[in-house]
Amino acid sequence: MRDVFIAGAGQIPVTKNQDESLRQMGARALTAALTSAGGERVEALFVGNMLSGMLSHQQHLGALVADAAGLRGIEAATAEAACGSGAAAMRWGYMAIASGQYDAVAVCGMEKMTHTDRYETTRALATASDWPQEGAHGHSFVSLNAVIMQEYLRRHLANRSLFAAFAINAHQNALTNPNALFQKPLDIALYEQSPIVQAPIRLFDASPICDGAAALVLMSAEALAARAAPHPRVRIAASASATDSVGIHDRHDLLQLQGAILSSRKAFAQAGLGPGDIDLFELHDAFTIMAVLSLEGAGFAEPGKGLWLAADGEIGLDGKIPISTFGGLKARGHPVGGTGVYQLVEAWLQVSGQAGANQVPNARVAMTQNVGGTGATVLTHILSREE
Amino acid sequence: MRDVFIAGAGQIPVTKNQDESLRQMGARALTAALTSAGGERVEALFVGNMLSGMLSHQQHLGALVADAAGLRGIEAATAEAACGSGAAAMRWGYMAIASGQYDAVAVCGMEKMTHTDRYETTRALATASDWPQEGAHGHSFVSLNAVIMQEYLRRHLANRSLFAAFAINAHQNALTNPNALFQKPLDIALYEQSPIVQAPIRLFDASPICDGAAALVLMSAEALAARAAPHPRVRIAASASATDSVGIHDRHDLLQLQGAILSSRKAFAQAGLGPGDIDLFELHDAFTIMAVLSLEGAGFAEPGKGLWLAADGEIGLDGKIPISTFGGLKARGHPVGGTGVYQLVEAWLQVSGQAGANQVPNARVAMTQNVGGTGATVLTHILSREE
Repeated sequence: MRDVFIAGAGQIPVTKNQDESLRQMGARALTAALTSAGGERVEALFVGNMLSGMLSHQQHLGALVADAAGLRGIEAATAEAACGSGAAAMRWGYMAIASGQYDAVAVCGMEKMTHTDRYETTRALATASDWPQEGAHGHSFVSLNAVIMQEYLRRHLANRSLFAAFAINAHQNALTNPNALFQKPLDIALYEQSPIVQAPIRLFDASPICDGAAALVLMSAEALAARAAPHPRVRIAASASATDSVGIHDRHDLLQLQGAILSSRKAFAQAGLGPGDIDLFELHDAFTIMAVLSLEGAGFAEPGKGLWLAADGEIGLDGKIPISTFGGLKARGHPVGGTGVYQLVEAWLQVSGQAGANQVPNARVAMTQNVGGTGATVLTHILSREE
Repeated sequence: MRDVFIAGAGQIPVTKNQDESLRQMGARALTAALTSAGGERVEALFVGNMLSGMLSHQQHLGALVADAAGLRGIEAATAEAACGSGAAAMRWGYMAIASGQYDAVAVCGMEKMTHTDRYETTRALATASDWPQEGAHGHSFVSLNAVIMQEYLRRHLANRSLFAAFAINAHQNALTNPNALFQKPLDIALYEQSPIVQAPIRLFDASPICDGAAALVLMSAEALAARAAPHPRVRIAASASATDSVGIHDRHDLLQLQGAILSSRKAFAQAGLGPGDIDLFELHDAFTIMAVLSLEGAGFAEPGKGLWLAADGEIGLDGKIPISTFGGLKARGHPVGGTGVYQLVEAWLQVSGQAGANQVPNARVAMTQNVGGTGATVLTHILSREE
């Protein structure tokens, strides 16, 4: 397999009530990424998106976004793996370069979710569930995560307030991220006062519905060398994905995300690294319980111990394993098909030393984990700075 | 790039009013392909699908189908490029093997379109168009193709009845395909009597709305050699894709499918072949006009001459360039996300000498062309028998 490098990245601010169309949002992020990469033309575009057919009457985003960005003619297509669609598009782009088919491709994750009524959006999100077993019976992603969080509290005799530290950390880091949806601090009092959306999930345990787009340019070593390189050399040291049952009723253990365990294991094996080598971890904190299970599944904590990492102050920018360093899904926002690419853009900013006020000191190796559904698809990437 | 081979294939009959769910349909086609490949386990699954979110409240088909087929845990995701989704999934699977990431993967294209009302299905199909410019103004894929067909008739002073030969050929070949939706002969009288759906398109110019699933197993040379090989060795000599503007208002020339021209050119270059080397061509006859433009775009006829290939008897099983050899989209059926994979399964049956009554004599090299929208995404593959 050929090595694959990140040559540049771009993002638009996560917002609500975005005026632009999906193709405009995507083209803006993509153009920023192309500029960041030195203005090189790419040979293919892989879009990550989940909801545009249902919420915007628009499939076929690959060709649309390529054209809107001035790239008419190149290969383009869309990858979908529910909320893991962004990192799924990254998997495709990675293989396109690793295979030798192309030397420069772009990956662009995007979602527009706030222009329809809330019921329609919630219902569309539930198509990530096992519909006949879950969505059709009224389950939403809030209610499914509530079942999982409840079981965590029960089995581990945990106090619900311990989850607050994940949301507080995310909001803290978002304060200095101009692309974050929320730039307001959160404390334990505010968390405790927030309404219970579905017990035991409070409003501040959940990520927001929002709009956004982010993009990356990937290159082979040859293409990277030929370009006037404005950024440090960042290699994709691992790219991995694994699945589990989509319905939570059919899981071996509700608290063990097999997809996270398997894809992390594959990623560490590919990179020749372990959890101790990771300087920061952009995980999928769509709900605080998912942050906990991702930390445990990836091996940063034993089962039942992930919750305490936050309470022990280990997840901050100067902690043992910094997470949600630009605000995470919770505070930067979770435009679902865009999220996996936002995570990768942020991880790239960190390991290339461009994270500004959000910089994790001496970050050289970053891991990302993007989750589809309640853990049915988990995609793990490791980025490594090489100079 | 590593060579990629087709190790086995499976399909379920194209039908209307399918009782099974999408995951069951996909799992059945996938299981058939795995059995055909010698029962080997695959490491990843790439699903092609366009409409399941809108028509079945179900996204996230990758993980669902993998689980339903007994493959829980493997990597899985969905590729979408409108009606080109099936071949887009094939592109992903191809890169997964070519890159060296995996040695055995599956590709499964599927669609279920007949369980909802016709208006809803037509509207969902229109999400393949440039929605704000086309679908939102009432355009359907029938009306968009009618515009293109009208221009062809006008510019080339052609008689509309010449299009009948494409539909008649498709129905003739479907008579001996047990997986085809339509197994009834068509003649010029019946064609002329058929209602005009939207002028100049008659009912028999258009492919049907239907349900279906088809699958392929792809392997590296190493994996193929390790397996007890029940089939001739068939290599993917080319895999290519290109795009054009999604909206037809924005095309350079309404009758020149730039996506077909570019992706065919890339495919021929990759394979080191030209149109004269192709023994059969599974093209995208969603409408008879698309068959004509695909023949012209791929280089089998000069612009304005594709229409006459059928009239001259050149597209039959023993013609110069056999097309729709198992009935094509017109008569085998067009379950949109499944179509690209059905085409590849049929091309594989042909070059491996397993096409039975539909066999093109001495077929060794086959080309497929799968089209998204009215030509905005075109994916071209060439299969070559190597022994």
